[in-house]
Order: sequence, then structure tokens, then C-alpha cells
Amino acid sequence: MAMTGVLRPGHVQLRVMDMAEAMAFYKDVLGLVHTGTDDSGRAYFKTWDERDHSSVILRQADRAGLDHVAFKVRDAAALDTLESALRAYGVVTERIPAGELLETGERVRFQIPTGHLVDLYARKTDVGNGMPYVNPAPWTAQSEHGMGPLRMDHLALAGPNVADAVKLFEEALDFYVTERVLAGDGVSDLGVFLTCGNKVHDIAFVALTAEPGKLHHVAFLQESWERVLRCADIFGMNEQAVDMGPTRHGVSRGTTVYGFDPSGNRIENFCGGYMPYPDYRPITWTFDQAGAGLLYHYRTLAKLSDALT
Amino acid sequence: MAMTGVLRPGHVQLRVMDMAEAMAFYKDVLGLVHTGTDDSGRAYFKTWDERDHSSVILRQADRAGLDHVAFKVRDAAALDTLESALRAYGVVTERIPAGELLETGERVRFQIPTGHLVDLYARKTDVGNGMPYVNPAPWTAQSEHGMGPLRMDHLALAGPNVADAVKLFEEALDFYVTERVLAGDGVSDLGVFLTCGNKVHDIAFVALTAEPGKLHHVAFLQESWERVLRCADIFGMNEQAVDMGPTRHGVSRGTTVYGFDPSGNRIENFCGGYMPYPDYRPITWTFDQAGAGLLYHYRTLAKLSDALT
Amino acid sequence: MAMTGVLRPGHVQLRVMDMAEAMAFYKDVLGLVHTGTDDSGRAYFKTWDERDHSSVILRQADRAGLDHVAFKVRDAAALDTLESALRAYGVVTERIPAGELLETGERVRFQIPTGHLVDLYARKTDVGNGMPYVNPAPWTAQSEHGMGPLRMDHLALAGPNVADAVKLFEEALDFYVTERVLAGDGVSDLGVFLTCGNKVHDIAFVALTAEPGKLHHVAFLQESWERVLRCADIFGMNEQAVDMGPTRHGVSRGTTVYGFDPSGNRIENFCGGYMPYPDYRPITWTFDQAGAGLLYHYRTLAKLSDALT
Amino acid sequence: MAMTGVLRPGHVQLRVMDMAEAMAFYKDVLGLVHTGTDDSGRAYFKTWDERDHSSVILRQADRAGLDHVAFKVRDAAALDTLESALRAYGVVTERIPAGELLETGERVRFQIPTGHLVDLYARKTDVGNGMPYVNPAPWTAQSEHGMGPLRMDHLALAGPNVADAVKLFEEALDFYVTERVLAGDGVSDLGVFLTCGNKVHDIAFVALTAEPGKLHHVAFLQESWERVLRCADIFGMNEQAVDMGPTRHGVSRGTTVYGFDPSGNRIENFCGGYMPYPDYRPITWTFDQAGAGLLYHYRTLAKLSDALT
Repeated sequence: MAMTGVLRPGHVQLRVMDMAEAMAFYKDVLGLVHTGTDDSGRAYFKTWDERDHSSVILRQADRAGLDHVAFKVRDAAALDTLESALRAYGVVTERIPAGELLETGERVRFQIPTGHLVDLYARKTDVGNGMPYVNPAPWTAQSEHGMGPLRMDHLALAGPNVADAVKLFEEALDFYVTERVLAGDGVSDLGVFLTCGNKVHDIAFVALTAEPGKLHHVAFLQESWERVLRCADIFGMNEQAVDMGPTRHGVSRGTTVYGFDPSGNRIENFCGGYMPYPDYRPITWTFDQAGAGLLYHYRTLAKLSDALT
Repeated sequence: MAMTGVLRPGHVQLRVMDMAEAMAFYKDVLGLVHTGTDDSGRAYFKTWDERDHSSVILRQADRAGLDHVAFKVRDAAALDTLESALRAYGVVTERIPAGELLETGERVRFQIPTGHLVDLYARKTDVGNGMPYVNPAPWTAQSEHGMGPLRMDHLALAGPNVADAVKLFEEALDFYVTERVLAGDGVSDLGVFLTCGNKVHDIAFVALTAEPGKLHHVAFLQESWERVLRCADIFGMNEQAVDMGPTRHGVSRGTTVYGFDPSGNRIENFCGGYMPYPDYRPITWTFDQAGAGLLYHYRTLAKLSDALT
Repeated sequence: MAMTGVLRPGHVQLRVMDMAEAMAFYKDVLGLVHTGTDDSGRAYFKTWDERDHSSVILRQADRAGLDHVAFKVRDAAALDTLESALRAYGVVTERIPAGELLETGERVRFQIPTGHLVDLYARKTDVGNGMPYVNPAPWTAQSEHGMGPLRMDHLALAGPNVADAVKLFEEALDFYVTERVLAGDGVSDLGVFLTCGNKVHDIAFVALTAEPGKLHHVAFLQESWERVLRCADIFGMNEQAVDMGPTRHGVSRGTTVYGFDPSGNRIENFCGGYMPYPDYRPITWTFDQAGAGLLYHYRTLAKLSDALT
Repeated sequence: MAMTGVLRPGHVQLRVMDMAEAMAFYKDVLGLVHTGTDDSGRAYFKTWDERDHSSVILRQADRAGLDHVAFKVRDAAALDTLESALRAYGVVTERIPAGELLETGERVRFQIPTGHLVDLYARKTDVGNGMPYVNPAPWTAQSEHGMGPLRMDHLALAGPNVADAVKLFEEALDFYVTERVLAGDGVSDLGVFLTCGNKVHDIAFVALTAEPGKLHHVAFLQESWERVLRCADIFGMNEQAVDMGPTRHGVSRGTTVYGFDPSGNRIENFCGGYMPYPDYRPITWTFDQAGAGLLYHYRTLAKLSDALT
């Protein structure tokens, strides 16, 4: 098949410290669609244009951060194949039964060297994007509710052993590296950006902390630079300062604005970036240009807050 | 691998009736980069952002149209695998030796039921996009030369036996259908849009003629709706009327402007469209809404010229 | 004063043939704010960003078209001065008392050579744009209701004696011509565009009919080309074909999309255009380039429907 | 006349410390057109779309800053009338002969309470915007050379006695205030924005220093938010960090990016903003919201560098 194995990041489960406040943010500021709440109190959301039941799951906890990220794979056979590949690679996997998350099939779970939990799954109910599969309009009113992103796009994860995590994603999960930012030693990586399809990144790892399992940001896709401005405006209208942006990344060429959810999880609204293919030679940013790599206009890492959750 | 088999449309070989005039158009109006001319007089072009040597090859002939379209595949092994799959499917293939086209490896050639010649190849020299692989800028001056598209994006081919061609692309080449427009009989397809990756379409077939091997259009990608306007302006500045647009397609949601090269080959500058995955249920446009499917704002097929080359 | 005399087109009174249907269009498709209905049944609207009470007034009638256009002048003294200037020019004026239109002061009314009724007024109640005058946000939710234009921008009027009407606006009302399109005789004007401030046009006259008092279109301002696309999409979502566009005018350089209200009055959503000053030399379009002047990309007048109301 | 008196800021004369370096910046980075150099070595520039001979004049000096700003007035009669008004107001004026600046008529010069020199003039040679006055295209290749702004748009001046300067512009020059930002005392103004036409500001005064005659920034107009991004990219491509932006101002609603010329003069590329009229009630920003007023997304004054020249 032209696209097999892992398709895309399917959902993230985030910890929030005040569920009511968080739901208000994700529903009305970020503008996601609330698709359900399970018995344990977790709230499920999707962007207006996603078809699967959920891409953001919120869990109340006493600290913010990422419980796990889950990737959707092509089908049940791919799930088995990938589990075998992971085990052959030396990774311990476990199966989480279908239904543990609403409308989501069985998951293969494993921990990666940066300390994050990663799940794979093959099935999540198609609830549609609010438009029929026959003669759809190009967008709906929901796309203008809050920031109204198109999809949950990618994550940036922070932790130790970034090189090992990258190797695992490359060798066991068949991701490929699109860009890397070198660390001050000129050898190791400060950041590595990988994809499993044609998105400029589906996941990134940043070597910003020795503490395992930290979240740098979850990114949502916007359709245009004008929509990125609109996101920043909406932060302002909610009397909330942006963390950074609107601006452009050197890495990926994408445009961006960062802000925080009420618990302090960093949320990116991202647009653009080129479309890579597996035959593309990766791009490297040297350490002295890391500032330009992350913030092409400001050209310094000092402008980015160092918050991690 | 996450992406295997066919990667993308890699190049088209187009027939033009006056090479000098055509070269002026492709170089300075469309804004491609001229990367070479071979012994037989064929002229090779790429968009500024493509990395491979060529995506548009012009051949002087006494009528316009498409000589062949070629898809790049993942690697030499994929080329062999796909050739086997084609033969198993009942397709006759031949090998065209490396070097027949400049900087291009061996090709597997076959004819599809609509009468078009299709090639697969695994190798084309990476000549870069004018920026280094270390610390690149987001764009170059070349991106503002002429229309300056990002890449050759997709083709729409016209001919008989559309259903058979679609089946071949699905079954032997592992493309998947993203959208279809039903014909007046409510059963057969007026148009079918397929992709092999995450682009909303890599190729389309339209049942507009019983004559084999016709070209409806070759499409180039633009980064924004504002760039689509700029393309239309450039047609105007060259005192050439657009065929249609700027407007939006219902199919793909993309925005578009159509015009013609000096030989009458239809050129699309396309932007946007959603990013599909193989687990996406295809979208259908009924015949009574075919006008909206093709031209979402004008809502009639009558606005599109019926030129084919 | 730097800006004296006539400030801008303040309101239009349009005839519609089915008030309920018209109100639905102006409120939910065009996205205006309904600010009142008077005893005679006229419905008053403003755009979200206008501060004065009303810019579009609908009156039920048995045929569509324009009852009158009214310009706001600087103050009561300017109203008197302009009335004197009109009378000195030989124009008959009458005073319509304050309150004949809701929240609108006394008007000076006169008929121009093209047969249209034109009013001047100095006072209309400032009802605000939905944001406070202290610490306002850049936009409100209302700006995304329907097409949500920024303001009623300009009109194009059709009728006989265009040259006389232009002369009246220049000499008695101190408008200045920004652009003109020559007629086939190479001497008279097919279209003349005038402004009283820094907008590229506040009013235009087109010599398309000998019938007096006809409306070619009323134009509303959009903030960006992306918003022009959104207007065209909204026509489509309402299963209504656009008349023309999105495209660019040669005249004014503005971008545009035309459609119709349910009674057949042509509505333009317009964006951009340069900002002229009284020291600017007017631009001329020759008759052979009139198509490019009106539709820069299509380059022919034949693409514009000839509907007038 | 509808527009009389002062039309717009016509030119600024800036001090630069290295003429060759400055000319390279203004010509190839900002993308202005070099229209001449006078006997004293001053270099004259205009934006591509301006019609008058010059809007930026550079003079080599040992410190950066503003020599003077000059406003174009309607005609010679207006120049006399305004000089009389200034003298009646108590301002000392002098006449600078035509020709002291290339292609520029006689100027009336005076000093304002903030210590800046201001000139008025009625004549500057129309050299055109690179397009004919008959059948022009909407833009030229020059518009894509460097940042390619549309016009020199406005200035922000810093110095003492802001209230007195504002009063002078209101009463003697007939400008009107569109917005103001209150200082910490809740009574005086931290910033005042004035216009003489329909631009959201032609000049601003900021109470950031007791030192007279300082320049906060000179602003150039861009056509779209996408062009503002392009400006920021061009700073980056020149390995120069932006000072701030792309972002939105609360004041004016405009979008913006700030950077510096090689001598440290702050250059803004500005887009949008609403179009005010003299009947508009001014908008006020309270001191606690001054951060949002200047940088709507960052919501703090601390993000703006305090450089003045």
C-alpha cells in the first residue's frame, strides 16, 4: 500500500487541573467540539474537521501534562505488525482493551525512552465533520467557533534520551526525520522532527530537560496565516497573552502562535509548512542558528518561555 | 514503512507547438526553473521548491497534450514490486533505460485504460530547491519569479474507460479515492479523484471524452489564496485571460485558477484542500450538484471551457 | 478643515419585493445588524463595524432598485453650504425633515441628471460598533455572522447623462474623479469613479442604459481577499450562484465578488483598492481594455451579467 | 472641497550614519525606489506605488534620527492659508525655497512643541508609480523587490509637551484624534494618534522621553497580513532580528512588524486599520490596558524595545 502502518497522531490525553475551566477553554476558546464524557470523568473533544470521535481527551489531575499520545494505524493487521516490530525492537508492549476510551478500539501501549506513553490503535468511530459525505460545503459555522483548528496536528515532547526515542520511531514505527536542530555540542540534537506521512512533522522531540515525559506543546492546524492572526486575537479577546507569535518557524517554514490552556499546557496553532516525502534529505539547523530555526524572525531561543508540563 | 510504493506524481512530459514560446511561458509566466535541455530538444523544468531535477518536460510536436505522466516511487525495490503487481494485474509493462530523460533513473512504463502512458521511476537527481540543507530560508527570490508554484501537484486526465483506470490505480498501485462526481446516469463517474499519500488528489480522471489520452489540466501548488490571486493577476499582466477563477472547488475544497499555456494545455494553480488519509470515507457529489462540485461559487459546469489537449 | 463637506455614502434605501425574504438575506447571508423598523415598515440595517444607526434601509415595493442614496456631511454648517452650492449650480433642492428616517437628521434632497435621488444629511445617531470606545477588541463575533462586511462602501449607478452627473458631483459636491473607462466612441465615458475622501471610489456612474435611476450595484467592504473568498463560499452554502468573482477589478485594483439579493439587487463585496488623494491624476481605461478594467482576469465585459434594478 | 488643507505625510528626512549601508537597506531590504541624490549627498527614495518624487530622504550624520517630516497640502493656496493659521496660532514659520529638496516646491517650516521640525509643501513632481496612467496593471515587479511597501504611511514622534503638539495639529492644521492611550496618571496621554484624512493615523505622538525631537518609528504601508509576514521573513533572510511582530496593534487594529535600519531608526511595516472620519468619536485606551493597546497579543509594553533615535 502507498500508506501503511502508522497514519497520524490520533489523540492526546492531557491532564488539566480544573475540568470546568479546561472545558470552557477547549470548547469555546480553542473551539473544539465536545463529543462525550466517560464514566471516569474524562472529556472528549475533536476539531470541527476531524472525522474520528476524539483527538483531545482531558483528564482532571493535580498537575498538568500529557498522559499519553496515540497514533492511528491503517487497520487491525497493521496494529499487529507494528506490535511485532516493537517487540522485535525490544520494546515491551501491552494491550489496552477497546472501549477503555470512548469509541476507540484496542490499543497497543508502550513507553518510549523519553518517558512518554505512546499508544497505537486501528479503530475510532467516524462521527463525521459536521458535513455530509455527499455534496459537502467547504466549511461549517463550527469552523469559526473559537480558534476552530482543522485538526490536532502534532506534538513536541521533552525528556531525556531523545536520540533513543528518535531511533525507535524511525526503526520500529517507520517514521522519517524531516529536520533536526543541533545542540551546543554540535553532535547531539536539541530537537528532532519526524513524520509518518506527508505532514512536515507528526511528532517532535526536544532535549530541554532530563525529566521524563514532559510536554512542550500540542499543535493544532490552521488553514491560513490569517487564521493564525485570528487565534492570537482570540487569546487577546480573552485577555490572555500569547506565549509567542504570530511568527514563523525556520524549522518546517510553518507559521505559528503559542499560548497556554488554563492549566499551563502549551497549545500551538500552526499553519503551513512544506509537504515532505520519504525521499527528502533532512534539513539541519546548526546550534548557532537554533534561534532562527525555532523563531525565524526573532532569531533567538531567549524569546520562548521555558514552560514544560 | 509508513509510506511505501508510489510517492507522488514526479513529472509530466507535455507537447508544445512552439518551443521558444512555450519556454518563455513556463519560465517567466508560470515561473519554473529551467534545469536542462536534452539532445532531442526536450526542455526540463522544476518548480522553485521541488528538489528533484525536473517535473515538467516540454517536447515540441504538432499538437499539444500529454506524452506521459511519471510517478516517483520509494526506491528501486518498490519499482520492482510495483511492476510485478502491474503484471499480476494484467498490465503490459516495459522498461525505459535510465538516462532516456536527463537525471532520471530507469522507468517502468505502461498504458492505462484511458489511453494515457504512465511511468514509474525510483530515481531522479536531487538538485535542491535553491536553499542549503543547512539553515535554509523559508523561500527564495525564485518563488516570486512568475507564478512561482511550490510543486507540480496533480493531473486531470480525460479519456474512455475511467472506471477501469481508477480500478487499476486502486488495485495495482494502491491509490485510494478521495472524491467522486457522479455522471448523469447516477451510477458511473463523471470524475474520480485519487491519491497515493496525503494530498487531496495526486491524479483525477474525468469522463469528458471517448478520445483516449487527453489532458484536462496539469496543476501546480500555490501556498495561499493570495498567491492564487497573484497567478490570476500575472495572467492579466500578460494580457491573457484566465479560463476560470480564482474560485473554489467543491471537490477537494481547494482554491484554483485555470489558464492555458501558449499551446492550449490547461494549467491550474491550486491551493489548499484538506489532507486525506486512507481511512477516510470518500466524498460523493451527485450529478445535480456537479457544478457546485467543480466550481463551488458558480455552481454550473457551463462556466468551464471544454478544451482538452 | 482637512476633511470638510461630504464625508461618505451614509445609507442607501433599497426596494425589495418580499420583505421577509430580504430581511433574512441582509441579516443572515450578508450579515448586517438589524437596527430598527419604522412605522412604514422599512427595515434598517448597519454593518457590524459602522457606528451610525443605519446604512441599508429596505422598503417593500413591487420592483427592486434604489430609492435614494444619502451622503453624510461634516456638520449642519456643511449641509447648508452644500445646499447653497447645489442651488448656485442650478439644482433644485428640498428639505426632508429629521425623523423621516429613524435616527437620522434633516436631509437635503435633489435629483441628479442620471435620474437618481441623492440626499445629504449631517446627523445620524452613533449606536456604536458593538465594542466600547474604551479598550475595544479588534473585531466581534458579529463580524463573522454571514458575510459580515466592514461598511457599506460605494454604489454604482446607471442611467443617462453620466457626464452631467459627474460634473455635478465634481463642481457642486467637490468629489474628484479617480478613474474613468472610455466608451466605444473614445470620447465619452462608459464608467466614471469618484470619491470625496480617500476611498478609491465613493460612487460610480455607468453609461449602460438610457433608463433613469437604475442601480448597478451596492458595494460592501471586506477586510481581506480571504474574506472575499468567504463571501463567495457563503453564496455557495446558500445554494446561490455568484454573479462574478472572486476576482480583481482593473479599475481601483480592488478585489470583488458580485451576487444578488433575493429581489435581484446586485451586491458587491469589495476589498482593497489603493487610497487616492485629490492631487492624484485620474487613471483612464481605453475602450479596448474596458474588459480588463472591469474584470482584470477575464478581460471581457461579456462575463458580467447585464442585470440592473 | 471635500479634502482641503493638509493631505498626508509626504516625506521624512532621516539621518543615517553610513550612507552606503543605509542606501543598501532602503533600496534592497525595505525595497524603495532610489529617485535621486542631491548635491549635498542626500539620497531620495519613494515606495513603488507612490507617485510623487520622494517620501524618504536620507542624510548622512553622526547620529540617527529625524531631521524633519513634511506634509503635502492641497495646493499653493492651502499652503498660504495654513501658514496664516499657524501664525495666528502663534507659531513662527519660515519659508524654505523650492528646489532645496529635489523636485519639491517651497516649504513652510515650523517647530512643534515636542521639538520636531515640520514642513508643509504643495508641490512635488509626479514621477508615477511605474505604471502608465492609461490601463495600468495592479502592481509591478518593483512591488516585490524587498519589502516593497505601498507608501510611507505615518510617523510616531517622541518628545516633551505632547499635549501641546496635539493641540497644534488639531487647531492649526485641522487634524483630528482617532485614538489615545492614557498615561499612568489617568489624565495625560502616553500616546495620541491623529489623522488629516481617512487613514487611521497620519502622525502619532508618544510621551516616552523629555528629550525633544526624537523618532519612535516611521511606518510604511503593506497591502496584507501576508505581506507583513513577508517583511518579517525578509528581516530574517537578512539575518536581522525583528524588534517586534508580526502582531496586531490594539490601537488602530492594524497589523505590524517593527525592525531597524542599520543606523537604528525604527521602521514599521503596517497593514490595515479601520478608516476613520472626522465624525468618529475617538477611542481611549486606559493605562492598565496600554500593553494591549500597543501589542494586542502580548498585552504588555515590556515587549517593545525602548529605542528612540
